[in-house]
Amino acid sequence: MSEKFVSRRNLEFLLYETHGVERLSSLAYYEDHTRETYQLVLDTAQKLARELLYPYLGEMDKKAPYLESGSVKVHPVVKNMMKEWGEGGWIGASMPYEVGGQQLPSMVSTACNFIFAAANFSSTGFPLLTSGAAHLVLSFGSEDMKETYIPRMLAGEWQGTMALTEPQAGSSLSDIVTRAEPTDQGYYKIRGQKIFISAGDHDGAENVIHMMIAKIKGAPPGVKGISLFLVPKKRITTDGSLESNDVTVATVYHKLGYRGCPITQLSLGENDDCRGYLVGEANKGLSYMFQMMNEARLGVGMQATAIASAAYYTALEYARERPQGRKPSGKDATLPQIPIIEHADVRRMLLFQRAVVEGSLSLILQCCMYADLARQRDDEQGERHALLLDILTPVAKAYPSETGIMSVSQGLQILGGYGYCQEFPLEQYYRDIRIHAIHEGTTGIQAMDLLGRKVLYKEGKALKLYFEELQASINSAAPISELKPYSDRLKDAVEAIRKVTMGRIEVAMKGNIEAFLADASLYLEMFGLVTIAWQWLVQGAAAQKGLDGNCSANDKEFYQGKLHTMKYFFHYELPKIQGLAARLMEDDSLTLNMSEDLFRD
Amino acid sequence: MSEKFVSRRNLEFLLYETHGVERLSSLAYYEDHTRETYQLVLDTAQKLARELLYPYLGEMDKKAPYLESGSVKVHPVVKNMMKEWGEGGWIGASMPYEVGGQQLPSMVSTACNFIFAAANFSSTGFPLLTSGAAHLVLSFGSEDMKETYIPRMLAGEWQGTMALTEPQAGSSLSDIVTRAEPTDQGYYKIRGQKIFISAGDHDGAENVIHMMIAKIKGAPPGVKGISLFLVPKKRITTDGSLESNDVTVATVYHKLGYRGCPITQLSLGENDDCRGYLVGEANKGLSYMFQMMNEARLGVGMQATAIASAAYYTALEYARERPQGRKPSGKDATLPQIPIIEHADVRRMLLFQRAVVEGSLSLILQCCMYADLARQRDDEQGERHALLLDILTPVAKAYPSETGIMSVSQGLQILGGYGYCQEFPLEQYYRDIRIHAIHEGTTGIQAMDLLGRKVLYKEGKALKLYFEELQASINSAAPISELKPYSDRLKDAVEAIRKVTMGRIEVAMKGNIEAFLADASLYLEMFGLVTIAWQWLVQGAAAQKGLDGNCSANDKEFYQGKLHTMKYFFHYELPKIQGLAARLMEDDSLTLNMSEDLFRD
Repeated sequence: MSEKFVSRRNLEFLLYETHGVERLSSLAYYEDHTRETYQLVLDTAQKLARELLYPYLGEMDKKAPYLESGSVKVHPVVKNMMKEWGEGGWIGASMPYEVGGQQLPSMVSTACNFIFAAANFSSTGFPLLTSGAAHLVLSFGSEDMKETYIPRMLAGEWQGTMALTEPQAGSSLSDIVTRAEPTDQGYYKIRGQKIFISAGDHDGAENVIHMMIAKIKGAPPGVKGISLFLVPKKRITTDGSLESNDVTVATVYHKLGYRGCPITQLSLGENDDCRGYLVGEANKGLSYMFQMMNEARLGVGMQATAIASAAYYTALEYARERPQGRKPSGKDATLPQIPIIEHADVRRMLLFQRAVVEGSLSLILQCCMYADLARQRDDEQGERHALLLDILTPVAKAYPSETGIMSVSQGLQILGGYGYCQEFPLEQYYRDIRIHAIHEGTTGIQAMDLLGRKVLYKEGKALKLYFEELQASINSAAPISELKPYSDRLKDAVEAIRKVTMGRIEVAMKGNIEAFLADASLYLEMFGLVTIAWQWLVQGAAAQKGLDGNCSANDKEFYQGKLHTMKYFFHYELPKIQGLAARLMEDDSLTLNMSEDLFRD
Repeated sequence: MSEKFVSRRNLEFLLYETHGVERLSSLAYYEDHTRETYQLVLDTAQKLARELLYPYLGEMDKKAPYLESGSVKVHPVVKNMMKEWGEGGWIGASMPYEVGGQQLPSMVSTACNFIFAAANFSSTGFPLLTSGAAHLVLSFGSEDMKETYIPRMLAGEWQGTMALTEPQAGSSLSDIVTRAEPTDQGYYKIRGQKIFISAGDHDGAENVIHMMIAKIKGAPPGVKGISLFLVPKKRITTDGSLESNDVTVATVYHKLGYRGCPITQLSLGENDDCRGYLVGEANKGLSYMFQMMNEARLGVGMQATAIASAAYYTALEYARERPQGRKPSGKDATLPQIPIIEHADVRRMLLFQRAVVEGSLSLILQCCMYADLARQRDDEQGERHALLLDILTPVAKAYPSETGIMSVSQGLQILGGYGYCQEFPLEQYYRDIRIHAIHEGTTGIQAMDLLGRKVLYKEGKALKLYFEELQASINSAAPISELKPYSDRLKDAVEAIRKVTMGRIEVAMKGNIEAFLADASLYLEMFGLVTIAWQWLVQGAAAQKGLDGNCSANDKEFYQGKLHTMKYFFHYELPKIQGLAARLMEDDSLTLNMSEDLFRD
């Protein structure tokens, strides 16, 4: 089995050479950090991943969580992991010093989480949810709440969750029915059901803190009546001890993959004794929750990329070592077989995997850069970066998830029959990654978010900024002769998506909102391809810069490999927008103008 | 859970209205059969599928085969299944009366196998391999061999297998090293290892008959030295009893899916006592084996389509019953939620599933029609149909396998979080179908077969005939006003692939065989899209004919649904050839001109 799951060289290339994380040190929040800190942090993350996470990849899959006497048992190593994440400062890595955080740029903490997820994706559900939940408390909770919960969460003692979905309300959050009844004791009585709650209960943590949406009695219908509550599994008594808060685990789901982390169904207030504490103002819960959801969406894109990275390195190692067949031009059976990496089709599959992994990771880090800049500036530049992050979040969630699935599938394919068997981790990666197109908003939901909300937002301001970013990259690359053909191709692609967007908006302006959005998923797919092409051009420019400098023989190979992968993307992937554009320019409402009866047979 | 896994209405539409199976009755071999026989046969198949196969779909997945005291234990129901397949005449359905067959057209026996595989794919490994192995004995075995083995195989008492792959020889069969040493006893002594042998051993059958390739001592190197042997697990002693033949099961693989059927590693002749019986002439084994391989490739395409069919009907039922969200134009949260089938994006996914399933099945049956005609005529028409079957076999194997994976994935997506959990069969379908792009020749191998062999074969004669078939369908559809836009689109697509093919052949003529084949997989993908578009046009014409006739209200809905799905294919799927053609017209050897070192990082 391959021992490599990420490329440190590539992470450094993206952080320092492509996206220039060191620029962030000019902002007060990050001023203590230098490249040396970052390197040290990455070293430590790699050590943890290598020693504690990767060794349990298969075992946590095989020994899946189960329900026993009303509580969820996870693999015993989860307890150690929580401790390490807590003690190492990983959960609060990007949070402010005053709450015990490290004030690391999210670019760097995300790079570390990427290493963790590539080593053992399931294990990262625990700290990432805790981190997101703690950040939510930090942003919108009372001082008392912050003091009570954040330190324990950051220490890895208490698990955080995001409790949104209900049996009748998955994609449609406006339909939640979990009720919160006010009392005169400063808390609300919660009653309802939540399903698909990741890390919703487990014995690797002392307590579980659910960030839960619910409706206060008498609240307006729909999303405007949603409030955010903090609902602990165990509440704190006046003497500081913990007592049951009437949160019951009804089910642990048996899943295709992602088996190391329990996904649970919870019953709240079966004995009318579940207390929830309002976070922020009543009826503003969904807008608060979007902070955690958006972080989680980027997190999902990162995790999908990480699984695809691990799959890529396993397939690459196999392709280098497995002899099979000969070149079409030299079929002499008396000569030895060649390693399959020499076959054009295997290289195509490897290049696809690499292009997806490195293109996606570049986009994720680009988004983190926007987030890091947006959070620390409240001027026009801050707004600019916030808008760019907004419009790219659905893309950074959906492209790595959807294309990551195909990428892992190609890795499995490279291993042939062995890829289908449990001796290699490919079959687990294939099962694990499939969740990412579903949770934190399905691909269809991301598509509606992109076309129906973000593209139109503020009269297209975010879209305009996005095009400006791409144009700037095109302008930088065009004078470099090696990159000119690719900056030209990106320019054409930008023209194509601009035209398609205008076409779609014309449909919207005719008032036909259904037709406008009917092919939103195809639009998202096209948008993703153009966006990743942009990220490849940016990487190509950085690689060319590296090549033109004084570089080692190893670096030269690395940069040339980068340029080759960039070319792969432009020659094999980007052309897929042609078929998508052709469809998106049609306006026939084919999927809408069909009676449901026509599915009868 | 959905109780529907195939559409009988659709099977009848394809058999009778689209491909006119009844025409075959004019040939002597099939003359006893009429539509009434076929209907009866389909009824019986459905009953067997419903009562014996479907109920064990999940259980055979959960209770996977295991090795105990050197032999493989399968789910006990497999024994009953073997008996039913034997007694019902299913294993020999298409074989001649004189060996106990039914002389059914393969179109009809394939339709039945499709029903079986949709009900429980894993279970169909047993009879299909037995049928293929028996057919191989019938075609190339001695009279004695036929008498000894075929009746027991057709009765389901003895399992048949296809034993090709070895640890060092998967895709590259020229590298097999299993040895056959002649004796003066009329048999050969076999020694070697075979891996990934489906149904290679199990306690649901009394004996296992391996159709095995091996090399006779001193044979020429490569494929020209491959001979075909019949190697029984237990050989027949002079008194007619069975004794061990020194065939040992080394491993039962633990797999992602396809868990109901054991895939085994076999050791042959560990005690120097494994006897093999030569089939046909020495050193001609691979050409014989191609009969079974080609049947198996069509079988794989059929099985992939069957799993995709079951996934489609489960997703369709779920989409009709699951309320979630509201139309973009009417978001009033006080109104009830709508069934998700009303969302455009869900319909798009359902139409994709349906278009893949019905398009693939139509192609499979088209191929069966060619096979049925080719087998019973030795004139020019016979050769014509044989060539058409040849060129379409890699397409009929690869398109349903590759696109079937995506189709099942979309079905899983429609179920959202539930699709990822084991309460619904989607996650099993998703695991099961993944094998089909691998076994019986990976997609990459099919692509080389299509472009490197079939397209060039006999100076392009098969390709010419293929284009003629498409042109004939275009000519038939063009005068029908409802179909004209689609026959035009197909005409353009044929032009596009013709141009791409010429471009590729020009590269080949320059002598650069590596460059010619480098993107064979993309060529296969494009060829598949054009071929399925053709099958949809043919179905569209049949549906339009049905609509123009005197049809019931149900039929009218069915035909309209067909036409709608045809339109979906032409508007959403066929445009994908644009990006493929753009790449295939380039000649830069991008994957070839890359040093392996550039993958280092």
